[in-house]
Amino acid sequence: MTDTTPSRPLGRLVVIGVGLIGGSCALALKAAGGVREVVGVGRTRRNLDDALARGIVDRAYALDEAWTAELRDADVVLVATPVGEIAPMLRRLAGHLGPATVVTDAGSTKEDVVAAARSALGSRIDRFVPAHPIAGTEHSGAAAAFSTLFRDRTTVLTPVPETALEATATVRSVWERCGAQVIELDPAGHDRTFAAVSHLPHVLAFGLVAQLAARPDAETLFAHAASGFRDFTRIAGSSPEMWRDIALANRGALGVALAEYRAMLDELARAIASGDGATLDRVFTQASAARRRWQQGAALPKPVDR
Amino acid sequence: MTDTTPSRPLGRLVVIGVGLIGGSCALALKAAGGVREVVGVGRTRRNLDDALARGIVDRAYALDEAWTAELRDADVVLVATPVGEIAPMLRRLAGHLGPATVVTDAGSTKEDVVAAARSALGSRIDRFVPAHPIAGTEHSGAAAAFSTLFRDRTTVLTPVPETALEATATVRSVWERCGAQVIELDPAGHDRTFAAVSHLPHVLAFGLVAQLAARPDAETLFAHAASGFRDFTRIAGSSPEMWRDIALANRGALGVALAEYRAMLDELARAIASGDGATLDRVFTQASAARRRWQQGAALPKPVDR
Repeated sequence: MTDTTPSRPLGRLVVIGVGLIGGSCALALKAAGGVREVVGVGRTRRNLDDALARGIVDRAYALDEAWTAELRDADVVLVATPVGEIAPMLRRLAGHLGPATVVTDAGSTKEDVVAAARSALGSRIDRFVPAHPIAGTEHSGAAAAFSTLFRDRTTVLTPVPETALEATATVRSVWERCGAQVIELDPAGHDRTFAAVSHLPHVLAFGLVAQLAARPDAETLFAHAASGFRDFTRIAGSSPEMWRDIALANRGALGVALAEYRAMLDELARAIASGDGATLDRVFTQASAARRRWQQGAALPKPVDR
Repeated sequence: MTDTTPSRPLGRLVVIGVGLIGGSCALALKAAGGVREVVGVGRTRRNLDDALARGIVDRAYALDEAWTAELRDADVVLVATPVGEIAPMLRRLAGHLGPATVVTDAGSTKEDVVAAARSALGSRIDRFVPAHPIAGTEHSGAAAAFSTLFRDRTTVLTPVPETALEATATVRSVWERCGAQVIELDPAGHDRTFAAVSHLPHVLAFGLVAQLAARPDAETLFAHAASGFRDFTRIAGSSPEMWRDIALANRGALGVALAEYRAMLDELARAIASGDGATLDRVFTQASAARRRWQQGAALPKPVDR
């Protein structure tokens, strides 16, 4: 499927949402000679000015300016907005695409994006390539972008049956030029996987910290929390808005993962209440062995959760 | 309460269980000139030979040797065995203590240890000082011990009403000489606190990794797990036996903390199923704000969970 990867650089890339992800993608492509010009579209003039000043984009439009005229001759349009804004953005750009323009996104969930793209793009769904670059830092905005963000990280593409092979190849080429390893999953498989290893852990960490913070003895609790607690709850410091949107966008798969986890907690609660050391031993031993195996196998460059 | 802290060094310290904790305490006291001689008691001759070779102990006895004769002239007996072995050990040493000997422990739970001490020591409970040094590494045994393990870490003492003030002062002095900051909590408060910020997170992390590892798509899941998952599950690599014992020893407080957490998960599951973004926003925002406040305030030397 990668035999058709085009090696020629893109002419025009339009990045909608010139933040950490969109901005870093533009910088990486430029550094690799992979694009002739980048057009940025965003909510705030201030962030766009940062992007212009840093050479991330060559032209910049606020959302209330005439940016849609830039789409017809674009090779690729990257929608790098928060997950909750992808669907309205796809509706907005749908009538302005050129016949060869490929549209892609950078959202952390994929089934909802595919549904939104089907609805907004109609028969043009063949030129939409759903994508999820697995990278990020705790910073945001064009000022935080850097060209090596995606190096040795994974980008997941989730093409659907209608997706044109050469559209997928174009988007694969974009991310490979950014230094990413590109893999393909079906959208449901993607959402199930990331529900389990990313979205669920975030919900669990948010829930624990919120619940402890609401206790009357919260001050005492936090005063005695140590490094195990620090690592376990690091992801609870993430953006509430971003994770609310992801939880809602992936509510189907996340709900299933959460239900399975609650069943496990029911079993552990029963074992603790009844003094059933054998069950605790079995579960803890399975976990410890799996965690150690994974840590040893994962001594490769590790992506950062979005 | 600390005005009576004795400044004279201990004569004889008997350490039962010459592992990471007991061995490091002996090394730290020796380095500080805080003890004249250390007697080690342990399960395996090999570990005792390590302790002798490293100068951690001056004499060493296996459990089936005549070690109880060393107790009568001991100033302090430190029971640094796994939590599950503290009770039988207290019963074993009860009849051999001198009139001035102070007994202490290093267990991660305290109400169960206090109950065991009352039962084993009877009226001698006044010279038993329950203690929990909050320190550790992923390594164990005398070979892993080092004199600075407790430096700038916290040791919690949980004296009961009968505890003699000078016994508490002696044990406080031991840990302060090791470099620890010593605080006092009542045993129930200790167990409630550590149930919430240490024991519960361990159970949650063990549960998640065990549950994911048992799924048919476990390979795919772990292949896509990133740094958020890595930090969230780090404590799931801990010793299953040690955490089984802690979960059982603290089952009362841990059961309460787990029930409260499951109620929070019920609320989050309802919000996710019904698309209730406002609830997710509220909980995630509370958590994120509390986590950031704590991280900023916790820029002090941080203890490591046991």
